[in-house]
Amino acid sequence: MRVFNFSAGPAVLPEPVLQKAAAEMLDWHGSGMSVMEMSHRGKEFISIAEKVEADLRALLAIPTHYKVLFLQGGAIADNALVPMNLLRGRSVADYVNTGEWSKKSIKEAGKYCAVNVAASSEDKKFTYVPAQDTWKLSSDAAYVHVCTNETIGGLEYQWTPDTGELPLVADMSSHILSRVIEVSKYGVIYAGAQKNAGSAGLTLVIVRDDLLDCALPITPSVFHWKEQSAAESMLNTPATYAIYIAGLVFEWLQAQGGIAAIERRNIAKAQLLYDYLDHTQFYANGVRKEDRSRMNVVFRLSDETLDEAFLKGAKERGMVQLKGHRAVGGMRASIYNAMPVEGVRALVEYMQDFEQRNG
Amino acid sequence: MRVFNFSAGPAVLPEPVLQKAAAEMLDWHGSGMSVMEMSHRGKEFISIAEKVEADLRALLAIPTHYKVLFLQGGAIADNALVPMNLLRGRSVADYVNTGEWSKKSIKEAGKYCAVNVAASSEDKKFTYVPAQDTWKLSSDAAYVHVCTNETIGGLEYQWTPDTGELPLVADMSSHILSRVIEVSKYGVIYAGAQKNAGSAGLTLVIVRDDLLDCALPITPSVFHWKEQSAAESMLNTPATYAIYIAGLVFEWLQAQGGIAAIERRNIAKAQLLYDYLDHTQFYANGVRKEDRSRMNVVFRLSDETLDEAFLKGAKERGMVQLKGHRAVGGMRASIYNAMPVEGVRALVEYMQDFEQRNG
Repeated sequence: MRVFNFSAGPAVLPEPVLQKAAAEMLDWHGSGMSVMEMSHRGKEFISIAEKVEADLRALLAIPTHYKVLFLQGGAIADNALVPMNLLRGRSVADYVNTGEWSKKSIKEAGKYCAVNVAASSEDKKFTYVPAQDTWKLSSDAAYVHVCTNETIGGLEYQWTPDTGELPLVADMSSHILSRVIEVSKYGVIYAGAQKNAGSAGLTLVIVRDDLLDCALPITPSVFHWKEQSAAESMLNTPATYAIYIAGLVFEWLQAQGGIAAIERRNIAKAQLLYDYLDHTQFYANGVRKEDRSRMNVVFRLSDETLDEAFLKGAKERGMVQLKGHRAVGGMRASIYNAMPVEGVRALVEYMQDFEQRNG
Repeated sequence: MRVFNFSAGPAVLPEPVLQKAAAEMLDWHGSGMSVMEMSHRGKEFISIAEKVEADLRALLAIPTHYKVLFLQGGAIADNALVPMNLLRGRSVADYVNTGEWSKKSIKEAGKYCAVNVAASSEDKKFTYVPAQDTWKLSSDAAYVHVCTNETIGGLEYQWTPDTGELPLVADMSSHILSRVIEVSKYGVIYAGAQKNAGSAGLTLVIVRDDLLDCALPITPSVFHWKEQSAAESMLNTPATYAIYIAGLVFEWLQAQGGIAAIERRNIAKAQLLYDYLDHTQFYANGVRKEDRSRMNVVFRLSDETLDEAFLKGAKERGMVQLKGHRAVGGMRASIYNAMPVEGVRALVEYMQDFEQRNG
């Protein structure tokens, strides 16, 4: 029996995606091969890769002057690869610090340039997104970096920063494809695929074409955006199976009605959980209401000694991976696109039941 | 119907591996999750990752003072990451040039250090491996790099270089796990997984522990061997599904009798093809006999105008991906571990038949 999997990533996938992958495992579309066995330069895989890119472009309405790259290494690799590719002779980059993932990005960028922390919500334990009028941008920064959904802290930008001429770079790993975004506001968007775009090992990079060709000479070729763009992300063998799985997820998203439709569902799912959290003293979410993540709902039991019993009871009811990240403790329910509303309802019912028995 | 897939990589996988992956796709061992959906830090995936490493160590008899890393980016990424991790304050590295993959490594290393080409077989179109007594090693090199199987040229080291104190670094992408190797002769072994170890998107790196902690400050954390070793390859989210597939391949290899047994089969398979090539004027393989690859058998039709007809006829008989690499032309039959002897026999029979009809 399938469980309700609240993992922050790798995370739950739509069951129809897994069923299709299983059915096609030994023979994709009569080719006599698994997708895993296909030469990345063969016509079968090229047809898959082209459709995956076209579907992603359609889902996110990516303008034609943006390139889409399918790379490897995840967002943590991009913490290094962004400055490598984007410094353009400048020596400083601006970063907004909204939590653990921002901190990782800042630390890694420090290997390549001076980092100006333009704004931070560390003063209040990362429970809010600093308003843009408080940001102190450098006059000579190469770019401004934000993490638009903090998976660990459960914080999400519900608005799009406007950095004018300065390229805006966003780590969207944990909420890409969960909501409508305006790509043209960004210089670069990057995201690990293992939350809303399939399986781990694939990184999506969306780059405005005037920012493609600025990489430092020390940039490894496979992470040089211009070289990879010229090679259609096939300068090295790409993560072919992960690309195929992403494609199945994109087809599933289209069948759900696209991003606007999935966003409405995500709002409703998050609302279910937050509404309950706001009407109980037994659990608490400390994030400012307008900055709460729709994808990662963090909460604490008022009595932490009950944490283990809570997790055990959840598991017995087929709900797993609710433990918060070790960096912050507490609980976390990641409710990505593929988490059905039934999973969220089951969680709220269990939380109510647990409260009645222990409150 | 499954085809005989002679792709150079991604390549044919053992059918039992694909069957198991399909059967476990929606629910791994009663966990209620696909492996693709598992948190990399959850006990289920940790148990998978630990077994995969233990099985690889057992198969290759990897000594305990070597670390095994499961990274991303493939061998072309490692062309940059090897000098980043191994220069140790030195400014030159030695490279042996035996073909297209060596050339890629040399070109990329040149971004980070001076490259001394210690030996090359380019004078004879990469049809032989230069004997070690002809290598001109630098006195101050950081390491010596070899590509022990040239996938494009069909060339393979049938012996192990001895570089004394100088660390020997080998790109074994296209023949790792196909033959018994003496790991202790190498400082570093790296390999993309998509030939004999599963699917694309996973890179195996085997490093002697005294070479772990030498990376340049510009090395991205996720490619810093020491940091990844300390994090058990989980500094970033690893390519979890590719690791799982590698594990299924390793279990299949054990069921075949291990590496020594698969090596005997590989010798027999290659022999079938080379014996035929040596007894016909219709096809030719130009590689020196003692340096021929057991994994990638390259050959040319004496009349190149028949190439298209040859490929078309092969495809009609369920044999695909026989076209040689665009850099060199001709034909190439990649016959990795998972290619059954029946596939090689079918190819030889077709080649004979084609010769009779066109010779």
